[in-house]
Amino acid sequence: MASSSNSSNSSNVDVLIVGAGPAGLFLATQLSKLKISTRIIDKMAHPVLRGHADGLQCRTGEVFEAMGVQYRFDLESHECAEVIIWEHDDKVGGIREASRVVDTLPGLSRIRHVNLGQDRVEGIFIDAMKENNGLEVDRLLEPTSLVVDEKNLGNPDAFPVTVTLKRLPAPKELANGDVQSGMYRSNLFTDESQTKGNDVEGDHSGEEVVHCKYLVGCDGARSWVRKTLGYRLEGDSNNVYWGAFDAVIDSDLPTGRMKHMAHSKDDGTVLMVPREDSMIRIYTQMGTLADGERVDREAVTLEKLCAKTQAVLKPYKIEFPYVDWYTCYEIGQRVCDTFTAYDDHVFIAGDACHTHSPKAGQGMNVSMMDTFNLGWKIASVLRGQSKPDILHTYQLERQYTAKELIDFDYKWSRLFTGQIKPGKDADEGEMRAAWEQSIKFTSGTGVVYAPDGLLVLDQPNASKLAKNITVGGHFENHQVVGAFNAHSIKLQAELKADGRWRVLIFPGDVRESDALDALTNLGNQLQTIVQKYNSKDADLDEVIQVLTVFKTAHREIQYLAQSLPEVLIPRRKPYNIRAFDTLYCDEPSHHDGDGKAYAGYGIDPSFGCVVVCRPDQHVSGVFGMSQGKDIAAFFDRFMVQQ
Amino acid sequence: MASSSNSSNSSNVDVLIVGAGPAGLFLATQLSKLKISTRIIDKMAHPVLRGHADGLQCRTGEVFEAMGVQYRFDLESHECAEVIIWEHDDKVGGIREASRVVDTLPGLSRIRHVNLGQDRVEGIFIDAMKENNGLEVDRLLEPTSLVVDEKNLGNPDAFPVTVTLKRLPAPKELANGDVQSGMYRSNLFTDESQTKGNDVEGDHSGEEVVHCKYLVGCDGARSWVRKTLGYRLEGDSNNVYWGAFDAVIDSDLPTGRMKHMAHSKDDGTVLMVPREDSMIRIYTQMGTLADGERVDREAVTLEKLCAKTQAVLKPYKIEFPYVDWYTCYEIGQRVCDTFTAYDDHVFIAGDACHTHSPKAGQGMNVSMMDTFNLGWKIASVLRGQSKPDILHTYQLERQYTAKELIDFDYKWSRLFTGQIKPGKDADEGEMRAAWEQSIKFTSGTGVVYAPDGLLVLDQPNASKLAKNITVGGHFENHQVVGAFNAHSIKLQAELKADGRWRVLIFPGDVRESDALDALTNLGNQLQTIVQKYNSKDADLDEVIQVLTVFKTAHREIQYLAQSLPEVLIPRRKPYNIRAFDTLYCDEPSHHDGDGKAYAGYGIDPSFGCVVVCRPDQHVSGVFGMSQGKDIAAFFDRFMVQQ
Repeated sequence: MASSSNSSNSSNVDVLIVGAGPAGLFLATQLSKLKISTRIIDKMAHPVLRGHADGLQCRTGEVFEAMGVQYRFDLESHECAEVIIWEHDDKVGGIREASRVVDTLPGLSRIRHVNLGQDRVEGIFIDAMKENNGLEVDRLLEPTSLVVDEKNLGNPDAFPVTVTLKRLPAPKELANGDVQSGMYRSNLFTDESQTKGNDVEGDHSGEEVVHCKYLVGCDGARSWVRKTLGYRLEGDSNNVYWGAFDAVIDSDLPTGRMKHMAHSKDDGTVLMVPREDSMIRIYTQMGTLADGERVDREAVTLEKLCAKTQAVLKPYKIEFPYVDWYTCYEIGQRVCDTFTAYDDHVFIAGDACHTHSPKAGQGMNVSMMDTFNLGWKIASVLRGQSKPDILHTYQLERQYTAKELIDFDYKWSRLFTGQIKPGKDADEGEMRAAWEQSIKFTSGTGVVYAPDGLLVLDQPNASKLAKNITVGGHFENHQVVGAFNAHSIKLQAELKADGRWRVLIFPGDVRESDALDALTNLGNQLQTIVQKYNSKDADLDEVIQVLTVFKTAHREIQYLAQSLPEVLIPRRKPYNIRAFDTLYCDEPSHHDGDGKAYAGYGIDPSFGCVVVCRPDQHVSGVFGMSQGKDIAAFFDRFMVQQ
Repeated sequence: MASSSNSSNSSNVDVLIVGAGPAGLFLATQLSKLKISTRIIDKMAHPVLRGHADGLQCRTGEVFEAMGVQYRFDLESHECAEVIIWEHDDKVGGIREASRVVDTLPGLSRIRHVNLGQDRVEGIFIDAMKENNGLEVDRLLEPTSLVVDEKNLGNPDAFPVTVTLKRLPAPKELANGDVQSGMYRSNLFTDESQTKGNDVEGDHSGEEVVHCKYLVGCDGARSWVRKTLGYRLEGDSNNVYWGAFDAVIDSDLPTGRMKHMAHSKDDGTVLMVPREDSMIRIYTQMGTLADGERVDREAVTLEKLCAKTQAVLKPYKIEFPYVDWYTCYEIGQRVCDTFTAYDDHVFIAGDACHTHSPKAGQGMNVSMMDTFNLGWKIASVLRGQSKPDILHTYQLERQYTAKELIDFDYKWSRLFTGQIKPGKDADEGEMRAAWEQSIKFTSGTGVVYAPDGLLVLDQPNASKLAKNITVGGHFENHQVVGAFNAHSIKLQAELKADGRWRVLIFPGDVRESDALDALTNLGNQLQTIVQKYNSKDADLDEVIQVLTVFKTAHREIQYLAQSLPEVLIPRRKPYNIRAFDTLYCDEPSHHDGDGKAYAGYGIDPSFGCVVVCRPDQHVSGVFGMSQGKDIAAFFDRFMVQQ
């Protein structure tokens, strides 16, 4: 375990994560990869076994690749290539294909929108964090009190946050083979039903006290951490409730493995999302509620979900030879005003700060992107590399993103459930147009963090240097060729989530002596910058890695490389040999065409530029080749000289 | 374990594999995937830990993908994108880059030639066979006698082959951290040195007797099985000996991560092949031997290998901060006349039947392709699906391939070591031309099995139906689109190594009623054919799977599919739902372009055709759309009606 004990029932750990859903597991995986002392607890006896979230957006996949786990998702997930929209047609006595659109807009990302059950998503991260440093989820633990030593919040050696944990007894085993009801996690019922899946036997068996530097509440929509801080989710419900279930279908619907959105005349809407193996997630609109009304539990039986689905899909037949799981939920959009407390020593993330309707496949993604934003910042402060100020950008960046999502979801879910009627409250075809417009947003590739003067610079003129790079947005992918191995390489995928900053130099064609001189001068300045923040005896690229993308063929670069400043191809432990993975060339590859990276980023090779990327691939700023001093000033604002 | 015991020291198993190198492990993985009762033994206490083979050719990768393990190789292996040829130049006082060629010829295969140490290759198969059905290597077991009950060779219920095994004592542990000498497996020394890595303590601890239906000797160049059969490797040595070592290098050679072939003026030749991580395999020509002369062991120290390498690479400097392993070998090309005995109940495979020089990266590949050829045949006979006659094609097909390899290697290694001198015995540039010509051969994609009237038909006119499909060659890859999921799909990768035959129908554009009629008629005939060989209650695609590639867009096919014969989209257990993975369309995909499969295979959509592929992806024959009866006759020749 990554925590140290200082008495029999008391221990210290740098980061305590409450809740082992996607947000918590993603954070734990990131911190375990960065070798940060971490503990992750959950009150449930086991991970999610079935059902729940299942959409994985493009940007999420890019981040998974940076974390080194995307290959697992490639093996297991299912891509819905097209979305088919069905409308009522009297002539056929039911639904008829009205239109179809491609699900992932070509060019949006190198990784496509896919679906995989939350049980498998969690399983992959549980495996990954164990592989990273042996970290495992400590289950059947519930927090009962939070005490913060406010005097010591500024002391980096203190563990100012104290959480008391209660050990829960092991539950009876879940029955196998039955259809599992997910009602115990549904938002339609009161808190008491929450542990229904965890029926307990006997008494609790003790308490323990954990002292930590940072506490992160990833404990879901009913977050104990959020409630204990006295924060509330604010927002709306639109009084529509839905059923969701996972089933194998037998149907004469001709397009079974596509994504479907079917609008019936009188029976509401069904959304069907095929997933791994033969499983299909089905969302079925069940009814509306008056203000303050609660759902009648009898209304959400599996039989009714199936019957409603069959009614919507007429004239097509559909049977359900196997049902794996079902639940129901009320559509609501709520967000918390504040994601942080106690001078950024306590955070909330994921569903604890924002909830919304599941059908746009956002929840699991936005939750993991919350903790992706937070993890490297906590690690960098704990390592003494960055000032604690950077932690406050978590609130700025992710609360803004959550609000954007809520606004989108509010509009989208009303369109979707027919509360805004196409042709009446909205133009004919608005549904389809909304879907198409939404793709960029829902893919996660549209997230741009606003300038904060710290981690994202306010650079209105950056586009003069790199027309297609958005400061605050993530660094997009273009293909390059490895200078030493001639491999075709996805440049974005080289920006691993290993906690390092990247300085990407685009020097143009260094056969021009001006370009070579500019690169050499910049290299000498960067050498000073990276050494300033490096620990003694570390490799030169321990904290900031410099990558260079030439507009020169790789053969030329191979012969030139020996004379470049060492920061561009540093020597590395344990053998003290030179790197062969830091230089790239924008040229056609042997097997995969291309040679369009400069054009793709909108960089003029005769000027070149420098792009500074954060450890989460977001662009902090774009600089000219002669702006070494500005790059130095940027890092000086938040980094700690060693 | 997959074997059954009938007394305390005697047991029965369908297949006994002697030797757990690449050939044996690959066979064991295939048989475990096919759920065949199998045992695999090895006299060594552990798999190869370092060194040995490391080249993985294109065709090998295609087969790995069919076996479901290629993703592991994608993660771990290293591609040498270019081969750089260095020649002596007086002006620089040493070697100078003379030319470079791309290593994997574009268009040759969708999978590229890569390198990965044999320890990792073996490790991946050891994992895979354990995952398949729990099969593990039974180590420290040496066969001591072979007795065959010849009366019972024709009885499918008998276990006519009896092997006595001696349990070897556990060796002392290998020292860690030292450079490991691979001399104990080198071919320069006598048999006694073979178990040098396995120093024994104390006495042997017993014997056991295994009765099996099939025995496969994958026990290397000094095969006990081959010697026990009285067979010999026949061939030549060219009296040149080489050193090989695995090292991390520190060098000013500008092209460190490429493959190098460096010819010095007076110090011979060095071949350097970068591999996973920073490791590089280095082959260094050490000297020549008179006929019958043995190498002086003092001549093959690691220090001498390093010094020789440094001499060849002048004026470049090279140091070796870490050396992992070294060995030496004499170049020879030998092949066994016969690969089979006792009416095809005893086989030899891999190095047991053919040895050659390692530098073309052939040995491990050809060895695994031997057992890939054999495994599905044994499984099919054991399951009662095929007549035992098919087993004899192993000898026909693989002995011919081995001889081709030996002939190639004989010529190539003489060119390589300068025994044929470019510019003197061979034209200037012949070395380079030979390399380029050899790529298709060495990639494994050029292997074509000759017509045998049984598994490969003699069809001189097949090219009229499919210009670019070679009967007897493997089925090549072209991209298609999944009819039900619109995914871009590598058609070859759909031909999994699951023991099934495939009938691939190319009906053309079924919006034409003639084409649809022809498909429907053929489908009805195929329904009868596949049912004939299926066991009762099995899915329709248990033994022969029918795949259809339309020259019609997928949206049309989705609406048409319900009316196609069931054999084209069979229902499957456990839910009895229709397949959605058997229909493909030759059209451009949303994300990956293309739509050129018919053109790629050379099939005229207005005629169409049918391609019958063996479980190892080799093409048995190409038929016209109206030749259902000929397809029936083909299967009748060797398949067993159920």
